[in-house]
Amino acid sequence: MNMFETLLSLARAAADAGEVPIAAAVVAADGTVLATAHNAVEALGDATAHAELLAIRAACEARQSKYLEDCTLYVTLEPCAMCAQAASLTKIKKIIYGAYDPKGGGVEHGARVFSHPTCHHAPEVIGGVRQAECGALLRDFFQARR
Amino acid sequence: MNMFETLLSLARAAADAGEVPIAAAVVAADGTVLATAHNAVEALGDATAHAELLAIRAACEARQSKYLEDCTLYVTLEPCAMCAQAASLTKIKKIIYGAYDPKGGGVEHGARVFSHPTCHHAPEVIGGVRQAECGALLRDFFQARR
Repeated sequence: MNMFETLLSLARAAADAGEVPIAAAVVAADGTVLATAHNAVEALGDATAHAELLAIRAACEARQSKYLEDCTLYVTLEPCAMCAQAASLTKIKKIIYGAYDPKGGGVEHGARVFSHPTCHHAPEVIGGVRQAECGALLRDFFQARR
Repeated sequence: MNMFETLLSLARAAADAGEVPIAAAVVAADGTVLATAHNAVEALGDATAHAELLAIRAACEARQSKYLEDCTLYVTLEPCAMCAQAASLTKIKKIIYGAYDPKGGGVEHGARVFSHPTCHHAPEVIGGVRQAECGALLRDFFQARR
């Protein structure tokens, strides 16, 4: 999956910049990449500066639209509850993510944001894509810091 | 509670600007108001531009800190899962909110973000403050638009 090559490179660049290596992209139905972003918590000094939220915001800006109804969110790690709900609020059609995150994920773990009857919009979800590589990037990053 | 007077005014200003009337503030332990914000989904063209997320981001900027460990988040409506998780990620100490939101809330309804064993940081929560006024603002806003 070509988008994951791009995201893995971007996540590696994040790690080189001292950021947790997670990268995301928002891609329109016609294949246009509306936005890419990596985690920027350190650079922005803001613990909410997750790759997905940054990419979603940038895609809304690029589209001049508050919704992204035809779009797919690609991300190297299972989104947390914040990013999952951001995808729901912006009506993203599909989420394709890399490594499962049993500790911090909010899609198939923890809060399972899309699984509640009150969830107004639940994107289609495909998880575990390039799981080994996406997960290894994170493991290597945290091991090097210990 | 004086902060709620401020927030109710700010929420009314949001309604006048065509935004869903929800307002939030982040207040430091010493009482300094680090940031206030109202919902700005229409103005920013971004469905993630919730009052709480905007206030949290502005407070991080004001503090030049990715965490807000001594801070209280005040908001006129129960936060959604996105904003609840944003409060958890920034290690906000306490959340004091107005109206309960059985349809869109993610604290005491829906995803109940802080109630899972994987939640790394769960702020103290006080809900239902000025419930009647905070809720009436929203009801009036949506009734006027129907």
